[in-house]
Amino acid sequence: MTPLNPSFAEDIKRSFAKQAIMHVLGAELSRVAPGVVEITLPFRGDLTQQHGYLHAGVLATIADSACGYAAYSLMPAGAEVLSVEFKINMLRPAQGETFSARAEVIKAGRTLTVVRADVFGVAGNDDRELVATMQGTMMCLRK
Amino acid sequence: MTPLNPSFAEDIKRSFAKQAIMHVLGAELSRVAPGVVEITLPFRGDLTQQHGYLHAGVLATIADSACGYAAYSLMPAGAEVLSVEFKINMLRPAQGETFSARAEVIKAGRTLTVVRADVFGVAGNDDRELVATMQGTMMCLRK
Amino acid sequence: MTPLNPSFAEDIKRSFAKQAIMHVLGAELSRVAPGVVEITLPFRGDLTQQHGYLHAGVLATIADSACGYAAYSLMPAGAEVLSVEFKINMLRPAQGETFSARAEVIKAGRTLTVVRADVFGVAGNDDRELVATMQGTMMCLRK
Amino acid sequence: MTPLNPSFAEDIKRSFAKQAIMHVLGAELSRVAPGVVEITLPFRGDLTQQHGYLHAGVLATIADSACGYAAYSLMPAGAEVLSVEFKINMLRPAQGETFSARAEVIKAGRTLTVVRADVFGVAGNDDRELVATMQGTMMCLRK
Repeated sequence: MTPLNPSFAEDIKRSFAKQAIMHVLGAELSRVAPGVVEITLPFRGDLTQQHGYLHAGVLATIADSACGYAAYSLMPAGAEVLSVEFKINMLRPAQGETFSARAEVIKAGRTLTVVRADVFGVAGNDDRELVATMQGTMMCLRK
Repeated sequence: MTPLNPSFAEDIKRSFAKQAIMHVLGAELSRVAPGVVEITLPFRGDLTQQHGYLHAGVLATIADSACGYAAYSLMPAGAEVLSVEFKINMLRPAQGETFSARAEVIKAGRTLTVVRADVFGVAGNDDRELVATMQGTMMCLRK
Repeated sequence: MTPLNPSFAEDIKRSFAKQAIMHVLGAELSRVAPGVVEITLPFRGDLTQQHGYLHAGVLATIADSACGYAAYSLMPAGAEVLSVEFKINMLRPAQGETFSARAEVIKAGRTLTVVRADVFGVAGNDDRELVATMQGTMMCLRK
Repeated sequence: MTPLNPSFAEDIKRSFAKQAIMHVLGAELSRVAPGVVEITLPFRGDLTQQHGYLHAGVLATIADSACGYAAYSLMPAGAEVLSVEFKINMLRPAQGETFSARAEVIKAGRTLTVVRADVFGVAGNDDRELVATMQGTMMCLRK
């Protein structure tokens, strides 16, 4: 997938820096490529639900941002991206030292882009489990 | 809908108090009734996405917890509730002084419960707009 | 909700008549109002899955058409409607003499319209059960 | 993924033969493997929506059956499979001489199995386009 916006990577970094919630959660942009964006989040005890696992909404938050920026990476310069909707299945208890949401564009359209994100819980060097998967629709707003 | 667990309201309050992420976001349980739960969240600038609106993931977080507890209110004593999956549509920019996620059980089953949540942005006394709507599936785990 | 297209009802009837699959299934347009469309389908043994209930895909087919036309009822004259995505939960075995999919617009936008549909199984005069519920996104294509 | 039921392939074929709707649509089981099932449907003019493309509900019907049987292939002998919910995005106009829904299990659980299905429109020997993608939840009922 060829990006239409030559400065997509810097634009995504700049936009991500403005997502205040990412700082509150401690999430970082760990990969930006055309049609693929990854966001990483270290586990923190204050991001959990009642059983001590990461809250499904936190998984959804990093997966949604990853989906939005994966879509954005293929949009023309000067566009804005909005989340239209997403659906997420929780597959396993969200355990791990770090969580990584990897989004990939399935179909980039002029107005709508469909994106999938997998969220992995990572422990140690090798142990990596899929904890949730998202399918969503992102919208391109042109000025 | 008649609750099977006579102490459902206290159990929900106790469980909600253990959802650490709710404290980080500043969310509060504002209503607990059989099959209906509402969570309220004051706007805060550090919960936003790049355009200054509440992040879709934050809307999803309070809506998911509201759905989970609405389902839980109809489960037997001693059960646990898990989010299986949810789908959320963002309808308008998430503006408001306060956000309110109101979940209502559509169908309570032995194992699975289907719940819907509407998230409103509230400004002043009368201005209340639907900003997102969720449809999700919650699971009952019996000990 | 005020329709923008004064001949929305005739346009929907004409479009529905062109949906060949509706004839194959035996589905009929039973209600058309601004923002609300209902499609009715008599049970037939050849529309079933392996347990003799109506196949979830058949429920989805009538619910999707009802959602599309509910959205279309609020679109300007000359527009076309497309299904972007939908999500459906199956709530009970799809039993009944007749099935009725009732769609209602939640939020009509310039490009995207969010619609919900409930599918009921009806037996006799009074027995009416919710068997499935859909939340979907429809798109307006202007010429 | 190792099947628990040694006769999963015959059981799926027998169950598929009982899905009366598949005969009405002209759909066939084209691949059965552990965790992967494919259903193929030749285009027919009477399965279309108002623009002459295959109706989204027909895409959903074959994708849902493919998801159900992909899940079923990993369930124990004697179990039954039910569709809990699914979400489908329509990516392109559903054009083609043949449509193929390929489902693959993402996570097989004791009670719930999460499955993804891609639906392709195929024309000629080489032209194959992704027209829709589904993410769904299937349930195992033990006797």
